[in-house]
This record gives sequence, C-alpha cells and structure tokens, in this order.
Amino acid sequence: MPDAAYAPTERTVPSRARERAAYDRELVHAILDEGYVCHLGFVRDGAPVVLPTLYGRVGECLYVHGSTGSRPLRMAGSADPGLPVCLTVTHVDGLVLARSAFHHSINYRSVVVHGTARQVTDPDERTAALDALVDHVLPGRAEDSRRADAKELAATAVLRLDLEEVSAKVRTGGPNDEPEDVSLPYWSGVLPVSRSYGTPVPADDLDPAIPLPGYLTR
Amino acid sequence: MPDAAYAPTERTVPSRARERAAYDRELVHAILDEGYVCHLGFVRDGAPVVLPTLYGRVGECLYVHGSTGSRPLRMAGSADPGLPVCLTVTHVDGLVLARSAFHHSINYRSVVVHGTARQVTDPDERTAALDALVDHVLPGRAEDSRRADAKELAATAVLRLDLEEVSAKVRTGGPNDEPEDVSLPYWSGVLPVSRSYGTPVPADDLDPAIPLPGYLTR
Repeated sequence: MPDAAYAPTERTVPSRARERAAYDRELVHAILDEGYVCHLGFVRDGAPVVLPTLYGRVGECLYVHGSTGSRPLRMAGSADPGLPVCLTVTHVDGLVLARSAFHHSINYRSVVVHGTARQVTDPDERTAALDALVDHVLPGRAEDSRRADAKELAATAVLRLDLEEVSAKVRTGGPNDEPEDVSLPYWSGVLPVSRSYGTPVPADDLDPAIPLPGYLTR
Repeated sequence: MPDAAYAPTERTVPSRARERAAYDRELVHAILDEGYVCHLGFVRDGAPVVLPTLYGRVGECLYVHGSTGSRPLRMAGSADPGLPVCLTVTHVDGLVLARSAFHHSINYRSVVVHGTARQVTDPDERTAALDALVDHVLPGRAEDSRRADAKELAATAVLRLDLEEVSAKVRTGGPNDEPEDVSLPYWSGVLPVSRSYGTPVPADDLDPAIPLPGYLTR
C-alpha cells in the first residue's frame, strides 16, 4: 500500500496560499480522473513550452501520447533519461466576486505533477496506456472502438510520468472580503462554473441502426 | 494598424498538424477573450513549471498578476530583462469519437504565446491591467467593485506579456475515420462540450437589497 499522501518537496510546497495545497493521494486521483486535458510543460532550447494534450491515469502513472513526430515526444525519446516535464490539470468550479477587486478569486481544483516523462516501449504497457487515454475521456469507450493496429501503434509515442512529486491546490467557498468592505453596495458571492455536455452529433456516415452507447447517455 | 496576422516563427509553427495552426489576430483575440484562466509556463532551476492563473488582455498585451511573494512574479521582477514564459489558453469544444481509437480526438481552440513577461511598474498601466483582469472574467465587474487601495496595490505584482510570438490551433468537425473503418459497429460522432454557469450564490453577509448585477444574468 502506498502512503495516503505524496511527500511534499521543495517545489510542491507553494510560496504562498499554502493552506490551499494538499498532498492527499485520493484527492489528487479524483482531480486527475475528472479531467482529460492537461497542460504539459517542458523546456526547449532553454525556454518553456506549454501544450494542451490528453492524458490518462493507470494507478500511480500518467500517460500522454502523440505522434512519434511531435516535439515533446521526440524530445522524450531522444533525451536520456527522459524529458523533465510539469503536467498540470485544472478544473474551474466558480467565479468568486468579492466587494473589492483585490479579493476576487476563482474556485478551482488543480494538480501539478513534476517529473520526468519517459517513452513507453513495452507493448502491453503501451496498449494499457492507450486504452486508459480513451477511457479517461469516456469510460467504456476503449473496448467499444477499434484498437490501434500495428501501423498506428508504430506512429504513436506514449510517455509515462510517475506520480511522485505531486500536489493539489483547491479553493472553495465564498469571497473573503475585508470587514470594512462588507457594507459596500456591490453584489458579492460565487458564480458556479462547470463543464457541460450537449447532444451527441452523429457522424454524417454513421449507420442509423447503431444506437447511442450508454457512456454517452449518462 | 498592425498586420492582420502574427508572423509565424520557428517555435510557433507546429511540427505536425500544421493545417490546424493559425496566426490570424482576430481569431487569437477571440480565443483569448473567451477565457480567463491560462496555464503559464516558466523555467525554474532548469525545470519546467506550469501554473494556472488568471489573465486579461488589453490590445496586444496580456497581463497576469499575483502576490509580490509568488514565485513567477518574484522571478520576473528580479530577472533582467524579464522572465521567459509560455502562456497557453485552451477551450475544449467537443469529444471526437471515431470508430478507431487512433482517430479519437478533441475539438478545441487554443492559443500559445511565447515571450518574456516583464513587471509593470507604471501606475496607470497597472490600474488598467488589474481592471482588465477583473473584466476579463466578467465584463463590467471592475467598475462595480472597490478598486485596489495603495496597500493592496503594493502587495500585487503585474506582469505584461506582449502578443508577438503567437499561434492559435483549432480543430473542428467530425471524426476522420479510415474508409475501411466506416462499416464497423461503433458509434461515431462528436459530443459537444461547453462551459456553463450555475445560479449565482450570494455571500452569506450580502445585503438582500443589492440586486443581482446585469453581468450575472446574461
């Protein structure tokens, strides 16, 4: 059994708002599992690069994938012992409107993972990672699609980032106005924000006999 | 009048899916103006760091802010001539379900800005930037709140990032299945994704005589 929490490190302890930082493994997993797009940062020619990309989680490993020709994938494959990355996932839960501009804020849950991304070469791990990437977006979809064939697998690079140096940051609740601001004539409170899904749009060439799968009707 | 498009550079031309890259200024502005949380990347001790943060736009400048004690703000203030950053904004518009796992994708619009973030010291520019940060989240809110006082201004660092080295990336439309996959018995199409807002939750201590402002009833 792993510890219930990730061990804080110098770079996972924020320099401010430390009360919002958390290292609880279940909380981190829950935040990660609710998303599917992360922002992956790496260093190229000394400068930072941040790209949005899909990710999946299997236990204590995150996976990202891409064309074998894409930059971070190439860099991770050629770098030894891998590519230093920072992978960040953020959910916005609300806009926090205080009476003062200064105390305006966002309710959010985020996870920041520091580590080294390494190319996955083991065929079984690659298959599990690609399934996890699809199922992370829509649980159950991986087995309800055609799995990658040899040619597609050869064109796909998979990177693994172990969950070791990890922190979550969470803000909840209403505005924290200064006591002397409470009587000001400005509306104050929270506007909830969430992700919502519309009506599925079938492909133009979809056989109308194929029903909408259960994972799209949740 | 600036050019209608940003000039592509070596690092704003993607190594793949180039047909999705765009440099049109209006498109870039529209994507930026629809969001308020970016992912800001910088390099610390040689390693990448990616943090979610609010941003605002004024013309061809983006602004981020934070406590004068926060890491990137301190780094930008002490670094000469500023802090190299990559600022990325991503909107997810849909989940693209192809018959093949390989062609699964996301409909999205993203903007990636490369450049150097510099501390803003001019008082008027700082005020305009802080207003832009609040109004970026809810247009009209800045003037319907108490502006920062001298003490709050002293505790707030503002960084500017000029829109010079910029690209957008957009994917729209349905799945791109291989012709031989079209007859497979899997549902194929797009699940639209959007951001939605709930019912505003007043602060516990809000004077009930204060009406809900117009910018919250859109």
